[in-house]
Amino acid sequence: MPLHEVQLIGTAVFAVTGVLAVNRRGLDAFGAVVLGIVTALGGGTVRDVVLNVPVFWLQDLSYVWVAIAAGLVTFFADRTVRSTYTLLLYLDALGAALFGVQATEKVLTLQHGATVAVMMGILTSIGGGLVRDILAGRPTLLMSREIYATPILIGCSLSVVLWPYKTDHRVLTVLAIAVIFAIRASAIHWRIMMPRWLTHTDDPR
Amino acid sequence: MPLHEVQLIGTAVFAVTGVLAVNRRGLDAFGAVVLGIVTALGGGTVRDVVLNVPVFWLQDLSYVWVAIAAGLVTFFADRTVRSTYTLLLYLDALGAALFGVQATEKVLTLQHGATVAVMMGILTSIGGGLVRDILAGRPTLLMSREIYATPILIGCSLSVVLWPYKTDHRVLTVLAIAVIFAIRASAIHWRIMMPRWLTHTDDPR
Amino acid sequence: MPLHEVQLIGTAVFAVTGVLAVNRRGLDAFGAVVLGIVTALGGGTVRDVVLNVPVFWLQDLSYVWVAIAAGLVTFFADRTVRSTYTLLLYLDALGAALFGVQATEKVLTLQHGATVAVMMGILTSIGGGLVRDILAGRPTLLMSREIYATPILIGCSLSVVLWPYKTDHRVLTVLAIAVIFAIRASAIHWRIMMPRWLTHTDDPR
Repeated sequence: MPLHEVQLIGTAVFAVTGVLAVNRRGLDAFGAVVLGIVTALGGGTVRDVVLNVPVFWLQDLSYVWVAIAAGLVTFFADRTVRSTYTLLLYLDALGAALFGVQATEKVLTLQHGATVAVMMGILTSIGGGLVRDILAGRPTLLMSREIYATPILIGCSLSVVLWPYKTDHRVLTVLAIAVIFAIRASAIHWRIMMPRWLTHTDDPR
Repeated sequence: MPLHEVQLIGTAVFAVTGVLAVNRRGLDAFGAVVLGIVTALGGGTVRDVVLNVPVFWLQDLSYVWVAIAAGLVTFFADRTVRSTYTLLLYLDALGAALFGVQATEKVLTLQHGATVAVMMGILTSIGGGLVRDILAGRPTLLMSREIYATPILIGCSLSVVLWPYKTDHRVLTVLAIAVIFAIRASAIHWRIMMPRWLTHTDDPR
Repeated sequence: MPLHEVQLIGTAVFAVTGVLAVNRRGLDAFGAVVLGIVTALGGGTVRDVVLNVPVFWLQDLSYVWVAIAAGLVTFFADRTVRSTYTLLLYLDALGAALFGVQATEKVLTLQHGATVAVMMGILTSIGGGLVRDILAGRPTLLMSREIYATPILIGCSLSVVLWPYKTDHRVLTVLAIAVIFAIRASAIHWRIMMPRWLTHTDDPR
């Protein structure tokens, strides 16, 4: 089943962006790996703790090893990795889409209902990045006009709506992931920000 | 039983103050709702996870919906809501009192003893606000001379002392809540700060 | 069994350093105690929640009382305690070593395997300090070139390697603790920082 491999790629990408995002701030190799692990595994860990199910990486350590390896590589090959930054931005969008939709479906399977499923999808998708920003002393992504979380909200909701029609062909899973990725990728490509009426700033209006 | 309704009002007020507290910092509508939810539900979530009991809002989603609605209204009607700021300050004091005393009583029911009950009362009352300040990049309330947490400590302790005398008349619950609210409301009204000997500052002494 | 007493000393030292680290920032007595508790108990709490075992201080409140007492003493006798700062630095190294190795052994007993054991050893050792820094608005220790976490990584790994040879003589436990303490104490004494090739900074290279 190829989905596990795709998830591992998502984990690696999250770890890489975690290290890249803070690499300029006097980080040592150990701190880099910790931030990589937190960014890659943090959201899913909080989700599983809140739902009181076993934490996913305790049962499959490949997630941990992928995050450690990706963090170390990024730390030592910083400039090389950074030169692929645009590619990473798109991979990050793919990882976020994947984590969100799969978490939503996991919660639906646990019979927690649509609202909790969407909440946990968003939490899994953005939770690790929030903890990373806090540990690194950066403004969290909640404080920016970047269109990051909104496509995840849309895709996870779509995933809930499509759930009753889901067969084991995974077509609908891939569709929800594609919708998130398409919106986020458009925002990256055309540098679209949240519209002003959906944002409060200190600027005079 | 009217207590559930009062708790929902407390939830709404916490969500509103969460959005108001950070609204000037370039927050978008989605971030506003996330901060509203975190402020309103964060403290109780950590409490339930530490005690290893089911997280309260997984079992009653009305808390989630009230927080979402209050966050959205505050975001879009920012100026109107902000004009009621003084009222909100008092409602926030009431919400904190209510959350603290009810959490204390919940833990006493779970037979965890007086110390844990008071700790969890305080955590439930101030935990959401701490996470909100961290996510929003503000100094946490622990770092201010505002009299916020001390009345909750007093009220939750009182609630433990009164517990053996508690009947189902709820009179003693209301008494503990009233004590917290009275102290906090006095601090707001007469702008009382923590006394200097209870505070360390950078100022020369 | 003297290990429990040593752990309580470690708890007290962590609480003291927690209060000292932020005492200059307008902290009141209540905030001091909260930070003392968080620094002393935070790492182990997250560990137990992730592993889904009962949180350790719910079952033995002496940890809580020691943290509260140490926090209060430090707050009110700030200057006296601060004059022992160098001693505290070494005691903190001892506490971190102790917490890390004991957490590693606890997880090995729970049959979670070597990787999780080392991760949880590090988390228990540095987790409380991370939360303290976040609540206090300071750069976290991950962002510094201080040699703090690396000896813990070495000692917890050693503890895993020695585990199959462990008898109940505790000799090997003490050995792993001693290794961590020796490295950290050397770093303190000779002011050794992380080597530059293991650190990224904004400085031109």
